[in-house]
Amino acid sequence: MPIAAVAAPSIGLEPYLAAVEELFAGELASTLPHVQQLVGHVHRFRGKMLRPTLVLLCGLAVASPDANRSTGASIKLGHEHVVLATVVEMVHVATLVHDDVLDGAEIRRRGATINHLRGNEAAVLLGDLLISHAFHLCSSLNSQAASRLIGHTTNIVCEGELTQNFYRRNWKLDEATYFDIIYRKTASLIETSCRLGALARGASTGLIESLALYGRHLGMAFQIVDDVLDIVGQQKTVGKSLGTDIDKGKLTLPMIHFLNHAAPEHRELLVSLLESTQQDRAEHVRQLLIPSSSITYARQRAQSLVDQAIDAIQVLPAGEIRDILTTMARYTTGRDK
Amino acid sequence: MPIAAVAAPSIGLEPYLAAVEELFAGELASTLPHVQQLVGHVHRFRGKMLRPTLVLLCGLAVASPDANRSTGASIKLGHEHVVLATVVEMVHVATLVHDDVLDGAEIRRRGATINHLRGNEAAVLLGDLLISHAFHLCSSLNSQAASRLIGHTTNIVCEGELTQNFYRRNWKLDEATYFDIIYRKTASLIETSCRLGALARGASTGLIESLALYGRHLGMAFQIVDDVLDIVGQQKTVGKSLGTDIDKGKLTLPMIHFLNHAAPEHRELLVSLLESTQQDRAEHVRQLLIPSSSITYARQRAQSLVDQAIDAIQVLPAGEIRDILTTMARYTTGRDK
Repeated sequence: MPIAAVAAPSIGLEPYLAAVEELFAGELASTLPHVQQLVGHVHRFRGKMLRPTLVLLCGLAVASPDANRSTGASIKLGHEHVVLATVVEMVHVATLVHDDVLDGAEIRRRGATINHLRGNEAAVLLGDLLISHAFHLCSSLNSQAASRLIGHTTNIVCEGELTQNFYRRNWKLDEATYFDIIYRKTASLIETSCRLGALARGASTGLIESLALYGRHLGMAFQIVDDVLDIVGQQKTVGKSLGTDIDKGKLTLPMIHFLNHAAPEHRELLVSLLESTQQDRAEHVRQLLIPSSSITYARQRAQSLVDQAIDAIQVLPAGEIRDILTTMARYTTGRDK
Repeated sequence: MPIAAVAAPSIGLEPYLAAVEELFAGELASTLPHVQQLVGHVHRFRGKMLRPTLVLLCGLAVASPDANRSTGASIKLGHEHVVLATVVEMVHVATLVHDDVLDGAEIRRRGATINHLRGNEAAVLLGDLLISHAFHLCSSLNSQAASRLIGHTTNIVCEGELTQNFYRRNWKLDEATYFDIIYRKTASLIETSCRLGALARGASTGLIESLALYGRHLGMAFQIVDDVLDIVGQQKTVGKSLGTDIDKGKLTLPMIHFLNHAAPEHRELLVSLLESTQQDRAEHVRQLLIPSSSITYARQRAQSLVDQAIDAIQVLPAGEIRDILTTMARYTTGRDK
């Protein structure tokens, strides 16, 4: 379900999101039938549409105060916002496709992953094709500013993924490094989505930075909740392969907290489970962590980031857009999928 | 050895190629030590520097006739050409890194491939980082034109790789599809290198298209020779894993010709070798193909493309640059590595 629908069915974003869907498909359309078929698989990956929604909402947020207080009927955004919204979604889907290869994940959004369905080779190449099209589409805009910002952001995302990969099976990973990883791999693109939406509307630097900060905090909270769900979630509800962090030796906030605060014998047990090769180790990790305070701790950290995100947008005039951004931030920590 | 050195040590490209090396390293420089270390591995991948050399030479080729007839001392190209040359090389290296993952190749330019050295995950991410930096660097230029052309080209390259992957282990692959694949995966970027070099110098459309055609034919010839070397080459001389086309079930021109023209029992033998899992099947394929007319046929097709490439640049004034481009084209078919 699109996150815009969760947040505010009344705001009138639907035509813009429909335009994003159309541009997404149009940009990827290929004359080669086997490419067209492969590309067809990615359409169902677009679930929440969080990033395009943020591009659009942040564009609306920096319109005149009158527009902010008005109803959806007077909302107007141009083609540039639709392009930018499509670009960030395309970058996001590219990272999902490559992430699933790296994680060996089999399920995503309740369907088979590309790697599971078509093999790792096709999935690596499809990810490459998506990132290529994202830049191609972005460079159709008049200014280089967005391309430069997207390029800068994807550099950061790749460095985040490389850092995560570097620290795999390192049980000494500390919180600061974890926060740096999740900023880079997740929050940076969400921050950029907000920044681009505001920038393309010619907002003041102060307003752009406030919305970027909102995106940054929201993105960090979002990833922490994702990491918590990877441990405590129900695969049926979440709709993607779970326990992949455990399987791939990627420490996340609850595990880092547990390894620093649990009783020594419990810490040792967690490390031995993470190092074991037994099939059901993810279930054992789950049983060990759920009753501990570490899940609560991680959820509290996410909640605190959501509060900071909401604080950041108090510079916006009171009104519908600010309310929706607030609801979206709160939804992040409340969700179970 | 840089191809510019093969072609013309006297032309004075060295300072520009040195600037490309410096910009390449500077663009990829990371504050994260583990990223910096990984990036360090790719520097030795830059062997022939064919694509940046073509950007520079095609820039020089469209300068005033006086400049073409003069010696290297008066050659002047601006920062834009250095940026474009670096961008095309970065795109090329990104494709090498991902290709090696897809091929499971262990050796490249006489050293271990990234995937062999650091694992498939790191190699996929490093390829992503390279392509991201290529676009980031390209978007530092004033105009979107180069970014748009690079994005268009990488779309084509990805579609070529996907087509190649799609036809793996399909023993009915025909010549037309093979030529389409090698145009997309190899020649398109070489064509674009020539086009960008001329375009950034404000050349006439006619001249740009002639140089693009030169690059296109040269690129096709280059890939055919590469495919021939994958069968007949000596790994020690070529300096990279050979027989990977055979191992990965990728039919190339000599094999396609053989399957269409050899005696029926020889065709059947080739298919059974390609389908077998025996360790030394590449050696058997080699022994079967080397004495056949199929290697000669492929080399002749490459030679004919080289002739067409040279024909295309007859629009240039006679002089040093045209001579170098001619020598480079001839070198393509003569090389054994």
